Amino acid sequence: MVQFLQALSAALPADRITLDPDIIAAHSRDQAAWAPQGRALALVRPRNAEQVRQTVTLCAEHRVPVVPRGAGTGLSGGANAVDGCVLLALDGMDHILEIDTHEQLAVVQPGVINDRLRAAAAEHGLWYPPDPASSPWSTIGGNAATNAGGVCCVKYGVTRDYVLGLQIVTAAGDLVRVGRRTRKGVAGYDLAGLFVGSEGTLGVITEITVRLLRLPDSPPKTIVGAFSSLVQAGQAVAAVAASGITPSALELIDRYCLRAVDDWKNMGLADLGDVLLLGRLDTGDEQQAQTLQTCFEQAGAVFSTRSTDAHEAEALFSARRLAYPALERLGPVLTEDVCVPRGQVPEMLARIERHARTHDVHIANIAHAGDGNLHPLIVVPTGDDQARTRAQLAFEAILDDAIALGGTVTGEHGVGLLKKRGLHAELGDNVLALHRAIKTALDPAGILNPGKII
Amino acid sequence: MVQFLQALSAALPADRITLDPDIIAAHSRDQAAWAPQGRALALVRPRNAEQVRQTVTLCAEHRVPVVPRGAGTGLSGGANAVDGCVLLALDGMDHILEIDTHEQLAVVQPGVINDRLRAAAAEHGLWYPPDPASSPWSTIGGNAATNAGGVCCVKYGVTRDYVLGLQIVTAAGDLVRVGRRTRKGVAGYDLAGLFVGSEGTLGVITEITVRLLRLPDSPPKTIVGAFSSLVQAGQAVAAVAASGITPSALELIDRYCLRAVDDWKNMGLADLGDVLLLGRLDTGDEQQAQTLQTCFEQAGAVFSTRSTDAHEAEALFSARRLAYPALERLGPVLTEDVCVPRGQVPEMLARIERHARTHDVHIANIAHAGDGNLHPLIVVPTGDDQARTRAQLAFEAILDDAIALGGTVTGEHGVGLLKKRGLHAELGDNVLALHRAIKTALDPAGILNPGKII
Repeated sequence: MVQFLQALSAALPADRITLDPDIIAAHSRDQAAWAPQGRALALVRPRNAEQVRQTVTLCAEHRVPVVPRGAGTGLSGGANAVDGCVLLALDGMDHILEIDTHEQLAVVQPGVINDRLRAAAAEHGLWYPPDPASSPWSTIGGNAATNAGGVCCVKYGVTRDYVLGLQIVTAAGDLVRVGRRTRKGVAGYDLAGLFVGSEGTLGVITEITVRLLRLPDSPPKTIVGAFSSLVQAGQAVAAVAASGITPSALELIDRYCLRAVDDWKNMGLADLGDVLLLGRLDTGDEQQAQTLQTCFEQAGAVFSTRSTDAHEAEALFSARRLAYPALERLGPVLTEDVCVPRGQVPEMLARIERHARTHDVHIANIAHAGDGNLHPLIVVPTGDDQARTRAQLAFEAILDDAIALGGTVTGEHGVGLLKKRGLHAELGDNVLALHRAIKTALDPAGILNPGKII
Repeated sequence: MVQFLQALSAALPADRITLDPDIIAAHSRDQAAWAPQGRALALVRPRNAEQVRQTVTLCAEHRVPVVPRGAGTGLSGGANAVDGCVLLALDGMDHILEIDTHEQLAVVQPGVINDRLRAAAAEHGLWYPPDPASSPWSTIGGNAATNAGGVCCVKYGVTRDYVLGLQIVTAAGDLVRVGRRTRKGVAGYDLAGLFVGSEGTLGVITEITVRLLRLPDSPPKTIVGAFSSLVQAGQAVAAVAASGITPSALELIDRYCLRAVDDWKNMGLADLGDVLLLGRLDTGDEQQAQTLQTCFEQAGAVFSTRSTDAHEAEALFSARRLAYPALERLGPVLTEDVCVPRGQVPEMLARIERHARTHDVHIANIAHAGDGNLHPLIVVPTGDDQARTRAQLAFEAILDDAIALGGTVTGEHGVGLLKKRGLHAELGDNVLALHRAIKTALDPAGILNPGKII
């Protein structure tokens, strides 16, 4: 270890390495409150790809684990320290290197904040769609490493759908480019797609080329529905899916989340109803807005309305974004991220309610309901170990139900540390063996974010 | 070999194995006239995934190469026999297993013809967008193995963008499922994306789950422009890209192709002009159609027109589809498939013209111009070996120019046998080493389509 740290100090500028235990501790975990963390050896904050390369090369030589991290907003423990690791914090590499309006693409360093890229693209009439709830804080590098989703995915897809190319430092310490800048390309295996969502276990992302769309022309229309039960709201979601309309957002927030946001921000949301659905359309098509509202009403909405008031709509969607931090104020939150076929949303919501009763835990629900991606949030009083055990049982039971309904244990948060059992249950031995074979092929010494995913 | 064939005969029904040299020869190559082919040992035509699994398992045991094939419409030699291989013809596994209108997906066997899936989806108001020119003949399995593109990619993306999940027989003889049925999912590495476009070198596809869209509401508008030079047409393409409009097709056909189609089908196309651009819009937006036509005119179109006549439009686009077989009537065709940034289309077209002059060969051009995917077609008189050598020099020079302009050696046809040098030039040693590592990890004995891609 001493030898390794000496070599690291010789290779990097002194201000890029931190050994201070408090600073290391502050960088040793993401936002998955329940995931374990180890003790890191050092924190490295590279300024450029070459410093990343030097760090990984030394770690490979000395068999020291490398745990890359962006803003640390992950929700599955993917960025948590493992014992004896180097934490590689990429948030300081935050330059937007290029916005090419003609080719409609941007080239950015991994530490660029999601909202900053969106704002920079908008100056050119362009749009970077992926919008995780963490978009004011999370980085494009972290988004790519976890294949982050968000609110607009129901219509516009996830991060992988926008990543054209990556610059990567491999486990062998090579700095390479994978993917492309062109609109199409099938030259070899889809390595860019493979690295996206691999949570730092196959390589360290040092640059990202993303595709941009034109900003939508039409101001969005917002359709709000209030329901007296989760299952009714789920039926409205299934009805929207059956209608064939693709909203640009279809979000669900239950009373537990609404009250938590009200308690914090005093917004009076819970007065609207027990469960809210927030639909958004960006086609400018009035008929579709009417159809969406009809879907809400026929599923039993106690209240529904349409709005083109941008401020009102923004307030409702920001309530959606605030739900998670609002709940965190009440105690440790165990965050689910199951995704089921859209027609199974009502059944999955019913099962989640049953698990809450069976295991005697509070489960709040927010959901990217339009694509079947549900976030049951299990909240436990601080320090109640028995409740914590019950919560973990409910957590695993919900994962198994998602699989049983033809869904997946993670729609957008990734596997990290929290979903390893669930992943195995979902994929089975043979597919997990394919994962291990690829991991071993690209990282034979197992230094890249070891113990995550598999 | 005798032992292997005995074991194969014991495992499969007799009518699934063919040893007849003529039938084997007829299945020993795709449509890449210039790619070499080896001598296959046997042709196996499985009826189901279990028979694929048994064949691959026996091939693995006996170290016999397996070359999977669909309809054999590939253009890079990817499905060509290698010496001593088993040809695994999957075109007989042609059932559409499911069309789920609610989840907007289809599950198909690999031998389903592309146009048949499109027609079946249309009966439910749904749409499978990827439309390679081979769509009346090529199979979804082959499309997935090569990540096929097509005319609508400029707006709707390529095959990989629609493949949600795959059933695969691995080199180890395991029958596994990768990917998902849900709209989102990040459970583990993107293996489905990795297998798509891997040209049978990593596994054999036995089932495909594809995402479907709703059929577009608006009847398409067609905008035709005729130009007196390739470079002017390229400037029109660059102008469309700069306008921010995304047509649902933007195809280029040059005089050489127009005349070849005329000679064959007597359509009188060459009277319209030397180079045609065919634009299509499916937004129903009249203003966009006007803008597209203005782009054509300002780039110097000698003639331009708009049409909503479906028959007229279909005739023009079918001329585009006929260009390749029409040229093949004139002699062996060496097909390029470079893709460059859209702004480089005029420069790339100019360089192609220079290479034709320098190497004294005929180069015809068709192009998915809107996404920068050009198909220079080098035509050589049958039996002229000197011209053949010159054509090969031009072919490699065009690949190098595509790379030099920031493009790729293959936009949609794949690497197969024809682009192996180009792939190496594009990716470099380190990225090729990553490919080899993955290939070795998933196919340690190297039995799956050996010698293709890498």
